[in-house]
Amino acid sequence: MNRTDHQNGEAAATIGALATPALLLDKDRLDRNLARLSSRMAEQGVVLRPHMKTAKSIDVAQRAYPSGAGPITVSTLAEAEYFAQHGFRDITYAVGLAPHTAARAMRLRKAGVDLKVLLDSPEQARMVGAAGRAAGVIPSAFIEIDCDGHRGGLTADDPKLIAVGVALGEAGVKLAGILTHAGESYSLFTPEALIAAAENERAAAVAAAKALRATGHECPVVSVGSTPTAHFAEDLTGVTEMRAGVYMFFDLVMHGVGVCTTDDIAISVLATVIGKKPEKGWILVDAGWMALSRDRGTAAQPVDQGYGLVCDVAGKIYPDLIVSQASQEHGIVAIRPGSAHALPNLPIGAKVRILPNHACATASQHESYSVVSADSDAIEAQWPRMRGW
Amino acid sequence: MNRTDHQNGEAAATIGALATPALLLDKDRLDRNLARLSSRMAEQGVVLRPHMKTAKSIDVAQRAYPSGAGPITVSTLAEAEYFAQHGFRDITYAVGLAPHTAARAMRLRKAGVDLKVLLDSPEQARMVGAAGRAAGVIPSAFIEIDCDGHRGGLTADDPKLIAVGVALGEAGVKLAGILTHAGESYSLFTPEALIAAAENERAAAVAAAKALRATGHECPVVSVGSTPTAHFAEDLTGVTEMRAGVYMFFDLVMHGVGVCTTDDIAISVLATVIGKKPEKGWILVDAGWMALSRDRGTAAQPVDQGYGLVCDVAGKIYPDLIVSQASQEHGIVAIRPGSAHALPNLPIGAKVRILPNHACATASQHESYSVVSADSDAIEAQWPRMRGW
Repeated sequence: MNRTDHQNGEAAATIGALATPALLLDKDRLDRNLARLSSRMAEQGVVLRPHMKTAKSIDVAQRAYPSGAGPITVSTLAEAEYFAQHGFRDITYAVGLAPHTAARAMRLRKAGVDLKVLLDSPEQARMVGAAGRAAGVIPSAFIEIDCDGHRGGLTADDPKLIAVGVALGEAGVKLAGILTHAGESYSLFTPEALIAAAENERAAAVAAAKALRATGHECPVVSVGSTPTAHFAEDLTGVTEMRAGVYMFFDLVMHGVGVCTTDDIAISVLATVIGKKPEKGWILVDAGWMALSRDRGTAAQPVDQGYGLVCDVAGKIYPDLIVSQASQEHGIVAIRPGSAHALPNLPIGAKVRILPNHACATASQHESYSVVSADSDAIEAQWPRMRGW
Repeated sequence: MNRTDHQNGEAAATIGALATPALLLDKDRLDRNLARLSSRMAEQGVVLRPHMKTAKSIDVAQRAYPSGAGPITVSTLAEAEYFAQHGFRDITYAVGLAPHTAARAMRLRKAGVDLKVLLDSPEQARMVGAAGRAAGVIPSAFIEIDCDGHRGGLTADDPKLIAVGVALGEAGVKLAGILTHAGESYSLFTPEALIAAAENERAAAVAAAKALRATGHECPVVSVGSTPTAHFAEDLTGVTEMRAGVYMFFDLVMHGVGVCTTDDIAISVLATVIGKKPEKGWILVDAGWMALSRDRGTAAQPVDQGYGLVCDVAGKIYPDLIVSQASQEHGIVAIRPGSAHALPNLPIGAKVRILPNHACATASQHESYSVVSADSDAIEAQWPRMRGW
């Protein structure tokens, strides 16, 4: 259901008329962010396979691919099905496989979608092989490589890597290639460390592909990616494909990492002042964790942004004004401790925009994007989001 | 969309057949939790006005009121509209008022719903008065009292309290009464402190009502509430109404506070093992923060439960097994640091249940409840949840 329809019977025409809390998407910033990484990858001769887990929107995907569907990455099979319904045919499902997802993935493959799955064990290889036979298709799978201890996958020198390659062959599964994700890069915040993380990711991926090829396995795709390493990689020799998702919107965590400025952050939560506690230096707004998410990703960074950084309704940041606490439908806005800035004088009913810590988490709290441009208060469109699994 | 329909074309009949991640609701535990607080309030002669912000489900509300709609509390006007559509007529919207919500609330009142709003300033009194006149209804408003510095409201001895009462009268708004919420009780964890917090909440509410009555304002309702204080209050003299929401489901935060046992927690997230890292002591499951929420409410408690406590598929807790880290669609399950317990041997495809930190936040990540009973693996029903604002 469209939220503005829900409230008013028709879509709000301006930011000022929008019911709050609402998720705003600045399409000029989105376009700039999309162009920045696609030119960077084009220069390096690497395919960009955007991760749709952040946006979960066909309208955003079409903004990334204005002249027709291209390769994408997804985090759920519901995303795969949604984007397939909208014409995307080259999809990598980048979460480890279980029996029920293997069967469901093969149904999509049977329907003509080149859906590739991810695994890191011989038992998963046998599982997807069986699912492929049951569906009457030849599965295609990536072997997950662990480049930094972040999550799943095998290290490039793990003998199990070759065993998985062998098991795939025996199970009748095509080896799509290897895939790795430098998830630990999110905790860095100097260019030197980010460049090193990108090189480490590349080196692990290339070493794994080399080990597989040395034992007779074709390994066509060498896929790496995280938004920080995608933007800081200086050399991608041997890499064929880059995955990233949050780069489309960016957020305060990515700003803390050093990948973007606050002016690049394309989404914000529009909120309304609903109370004041001047004796405590508090302004209460109607965006709590239900609208902002519980994500506190900047808490571990040099600058803790609370639950978000507060801007005026046009998007200009109030210096050091953050959402310092959040309950379900209330945000407490206050000046950052130690700052010399004063609390702005905002009356009940005033609107503010809040830049989020983590775009993936904040966007997932909303049904749709209210699309705006940089220099206008018009709501140009409502772009729905999909959800679920 | 019903998730099981989405995947299979028909609802899964058993827990084992359910696609994961999925939100399970044990209706026997729900019924027991509902009965516990309603008997307690009946004994004390206090009206229970359940807060629907946790469940957001007409099926759960009907479980609380099996013989017909009763009084409820809501956190959004979308909830008010949803429950009104399902026959609820006595609704308190317990979030501070803004101009757009005042107008929308009065539309519901015009439609015959006894919707009461909340405010703490003369300007909000004038705002709702104007909205009432515009809609052709007499508004009814609670004055919010601050009993513990948690969020909004006026202290009982604040002279502005009487000024708001006067402003309501001048604006043609009926004073419904006073309303307070002991939100700081969530950070306590001894019976003595909880009993004291409940008494503090009662005393502040009664003092505010007394101050209003002493200056000629009728103050029919004295409304207090939080799940911890509702269960620990020893004396509710002068209180007419109790509000609580999370008591229906309970969660690990409430367990840490000491209000419930883990056997009372009625919701859990069903997840599947999708990977293993034995050398790190990790099991990877397909429930990350998208399924569990980013809530880390137990981090500040004596026992940190990570992103949740892991049980077998029947609901039996694995001692000291927690979701230690979460990314969007991955949970890392590990034994709590310092524990002597061993990691259980769970194969790829095995299912587990995860008890959540915070029921409100975890439930809001899901479209529906898969309803189960204590001693059966049958899915008895799918109860949809509403969302948005």
